[in-house]
Amino acid sequence: MANFGGHAIPGTFFLLYGLWLAVKHTLCHHWRKGQTTGRQKTPTILKYMEYVEGGFEMFAAFVGIMVEQFVTDGPHAELYDHSSKSWVKLMNWQHSTMYLFFGIAGFANVMTTLTKSTPLGIDRISVSLALFVEGFLFYYHLHDRPPLDAHVHTLLLVPVFAGSANAMLQVFLRDNIILELFLACLFFLQGSWFYQIGCVLYPLSGPQWDLTMHGNLMFITMCFCWHLAIALLITSIISLLVCSIVKRVSGNSRNVELGMRNTANCSRKALLDETDEE
Amino acid sequence: MANFGGHAIPGTFFLLYGLWLAVKHTLCHHWRKGQTTGRQKTPTILKYMEYVEGGFEMFAAFVGIMVEQFVTDGPHAELYDHSSKSWVKLMNWQHSTMYLFFGIAGFANVMTTLTKSTPLGIDRISVSLALFVEGFLFYYHLHDRPPLDAHVHTLLLVPVFAGSANAMLQVFLRDNIILELFLACLFFLQGSWFYQIGCVLYPLSGPQWDLTMHGNLMFITMCFCWHLAIALLITSIISLLVCSIVKRVSGNSRNVELGMRNTANCSRKALLDETDEE
Amino acid sequence: MANFGGHAIPGTFFLLYGLWLAVKHTLCHHWRKGQTTGRQKTPTILKYMEYVEGGFEMFAAFVGIMVEQFVTDGPHAELYDHSSKSWVKLMNWQHSTMYLFFGIAGFANVMTTLTKSTPLGIDRISVSLALFVEGFLFYYHLHDRPPLDAHVHTLLLVPVFAGSANAMLQVFLRDNIILELFLACLFFLQGSWFYQIGCVLYPLSGPQWDLTMHGNLMFITMCFCWHLAIALLITSIISLLVCSIVKRVSGNSRNVELGMRNTANCSRKALLDETDEE
Amino acid sequence: MANFGGHAIPGTFFLLYGLWLAVKHTLCHHWRKGQTTGRQKTPTILKYMEYVEGGFEMFAAFVGIMVEQFVTDGPHAELYDHSSKSWVKLMNWQHSTMYLFFGIAGFANVMTTLTKSTPLGIDRISVSLALFVEGFLFYYHLHDRPPLDAHVHTLLLVPVFAGSANAMLQVFLRDNIILELFLACLFFLQGSWFYQIGCVLYPLSGPQWDLTMHGNLMFITMCFCWHLAIALLITSIISLLVCSIVKRVSGNSRNVELGMRNTANCSRKALLDETDEE
Repeated sequence: MANFGGHAIPGTFFLLYGLWLAVKHTLCHHWRKGQTTGRQKTPTILKYMEYVEGGFEMFAAFVGIMVEQFVTDGPHAELYDHSSKSWVKLMNWQHSTMYLFFGIAGFANVMTTLTKSTPLGIDRISVSLALFVEGFLFYYHLHDRPPLDAHVHTLLLVPVFAGSANAMLQVFLRDNIILELFLACLFFLQGSWFYQIGCVLYPLSGPQWDLTMHGNLMFITMCFCWHLAIALLITSIISLLVCSIVKRVSGNSRNVELGMRNTANCSRKALLDETDEE
Repeated sequence: MANFGGHAIPGTFFLLYGLWLAVKHTLCHHWRKGQTTGRQKTPTILKYMEYVEGGFEMFAAFVGIMVEQFVTDGPHAELYDHSSKSWVKLMNWQHSTMYLFFGIAGFANVMTTLTKSTPLGIDRISVSLALFVEGFLFYYHLHDRPPLDAHVHTLLLVPVFAGSANAMLQVFLRDNIILELFLACLFFLQGSWFYQIGCVLYPLSGPQWDLTMHGNLMFITMCFCWHLAIALLITSIISLLVCSIVKRVSGNSRNVELGMRNTANCSRKALLDETDEE
Repeated sequence: MANFGGHAIPGTFFLLYGLWLAVKHTLCHHWRKGQTTGRQKTPTILKYMEYVEGGFEMFAAFVGIMVEQFVTDGPHAELYDHSSKSWVKLMNWQHSTMYLFFGIAGFANVMTTLTKSTPLGIDRISVSLALFVEGFLFYYHLHDRPPLDAHVHTLLLVPVFAGSANAMLQVFLRDNIILELFLACLFFLQGSWFYQIGCVLYPLSGPQWDLTMHGNLMFITMCFCWHLAIALLITSIISLLVCSIVKRVSGNSRNVELGMRNTANCSRKALLDETDEE
Repeated sequence: MANFGGHAIPGTFFLLYGLWLAVKHTLCHHWRKGQTTGRQKTPTILKYMEYVEGGFEMFAAFVGIMVEQFVTDGPHAELYDHSSKSWVKLMNWQHSTMYLFFGIAGFANVMTTLTKSTPLGIDRISVSLALFVEGFLFYYHLHDRPPLDAHVHTLLLVPVFAGSANAMLQVFLRDNIILELFLACLFFLQGSWFYQIGCVLYPLSGPQWDLTMHGNLMFITMCFCWHLAIALLITSIISLLVCSIVKRVSGNSRNVELGMRNTANCSRKALLDETDEE
């Protein structure tokens, strides 16, 4: 994966996953608010979304592992080379391990949706563990690299571990829209930062970056904040779009002042949800 | 900003913001307590205060960014100088980035107050992020500086990150007066510490500080605690003043023993608020 | 304990304890769910399990301390050797200290089950302290060792301190099945990792590990994640088995559709348990 | 304070404070449990205890500051010596600062008990800040000392910061007997550890400790765990004694089976307190 593509592919996946989470959780939130007005709108579509998400995660993890293993310069499922007395392509093995845990997260997601006897929260804790393992492996990845290289990967750990903590928190504070959207935002940040790493270490055009120049370190640190700002912007735009679309769609099915009243109730309920945590 | 003024200006802003928060949250708290007595006193003024706060934050952030960019020795919106192959005035760019996030916090504040469909807590998490970004940029700011210089900036990170954690906590424990006043206190601390930094690095009068003498480090560490003590004192005085003024004002509008009863109810309610968390 | 057996014995204990916790908490969870259907099934067996657990912990701790002290090359309860002006076998003393705290945890467990006047949660906080002490002593154990040796012991701290935090959390979030099963999982991880340490430092067969080779460090880091994956797998399998067995057993004692209804209620209740935390 | 007495005095204070907290909180807990049975036993004595505690804290803090300042070799309220261009007796000034914050904690304690309009929790957060400041000043105290000296002071930070976190937690989880007794336990640990530090650095009898020998570091680390075990033992004994005395006293005032019923109710209520946090 030591090239631009190798960073663009996971980046794209994380961007898409962030997009997916933002859409899904906004829909769930809207449905939950609808609940309070007595209308029992069955969330079959939401269930299907969970299946799709989990299934895709498992599929993507499987493909990822296969690619990492059987790419031309991969380890081909060989772990230790007794002839040279050394480990074979540990980098690919580590990436396979990361994918494995995202696959587990997908499986947990499906199980939680499938059978009600699976305790709620298993899905979130497995996402938390997947992110933890990713950060954990990256963390022990970094030593004896040039300063800038180490720094961009260190900054990557911020969204990874923050996401892990966020998902862990969701085990106990389930259906908190702010936590959910913030997790989506952190996935956007991680995704776009993967692209940034690719640009810094393997620029497609222009000169190479000086990996030791202090100015570059300072710029990258600031650049990370810009990525965060953009991730926040994207998350809120998506959430607004979905919200307005859903409102228009569900709005057509009933007259206006009822809609008004619903909105009022929802907001009041949202208010109560918050306040009864004082 | 490498002069006394450059530290006095943000210091003043943070002091004023702390003052504002202390006043606002004391008023909110008093109004919430009033609620329990059945009187529906409309908090229109509180809403206006939120608009003023958010609007001012956005305005100040905009002005701050403009100043940082277009001050005579600023980068003038130029990021990379291809001629000298170096970044232009990264310090100013970093400060602009900090202001940007406080602007976002102001925007979130206005939105939360404006439309009930914005989930409560967005305002707090955006403040938390603004403080995180500030601390994050300062943190990667510090290396290869003389000991005392690095130390005073390290101490600055204490109120910054503590404030960030506090605001994040308020997302889940909303309307907890202690958290709210403590956040105000942390802003006072941050503000007064900015002044302290200015005095240490760019003394207006008297001799320069020896930036390597160990005694100075020990004194500054202790001095930080004194700032904290003073911040606690100021916060409680303000809160007391506001509380007593409000009580007198609202007291005139109804006879005394009713006031008594209200106070009793309030306190009992406050008591319940706490106890039902056991 | 500087041999394979010295790591296999604690490893085995932790694996068995993890197994025990997984079984016990799954039973408790099933019983709690049953509660909602109005049937008051007395958990006498669960109480007995607590006594057995606590009693065994105390017994094992006592035996462990005795062995550490009076093994042939042990300190024989002598702490300081005045002749050689040095401490006697501090390693054995440290292990005895660890066992002591697990003994305390067992005692607390028995007391909590025995008398209702012992506040609930004492049992969990004592487990948390036992794990903290274990990690605390290991942590100050590590310096001036070869890299790989230090690394495998550092990784051991992850399940230890995570388990301590988990148990501390259970003081406040009692009867949360996810926390409980995750703690069991962390004990599995710790147990299997003890075996891994034994294999790395004192291989039973084949060549010695090169304790300085970087490839080995990278592999061990990844290997730790595999242990975590296996621990998750084992925990879920055990939980599933126990759950299905219990359901079949309790299913026989009443007709089917009642069972159905119960399951429905349970799951709905579980759902409510979670959702009322929003 | 560079002598045995200088460590024995604070040690004694912390031991007594721990004793006080253990007694007070056990009484409060017993009274709270009594509440559920409908008997409104007025906790006047508990209020008085708060006044005594707060008042004593303020008094002790004042005396401590005076002593630190005006002891023969003290700074006599002189901070900076312009003749020698150096700070005067910063150590004494730092200790005065620590006492100041414990004085503030005492004041907050009195205010919270005095006027119901002071939000509950102010007392706990001020204790938390006092401990934070203590640890904060000790932390920046440690560099360039011999290994063992630094180590014993580092270990001191464990109960200090753990106590600070515990008190902060009590702001939100008030009247949780486990948190309260654990805080008492941490004060016992801190107190006894102060004695240990005194014994290590300024032995009253016998030879000096070798401050660089590794064996001593390992022993002290383990010794810290023994102090913790003893602190746990003392806390539980005190709590048991108080509980049994109170039960006998209050038992005399009503017939037995009523007592039984109360105890039953209490425990059930305690059970509910916990369970409704799931």
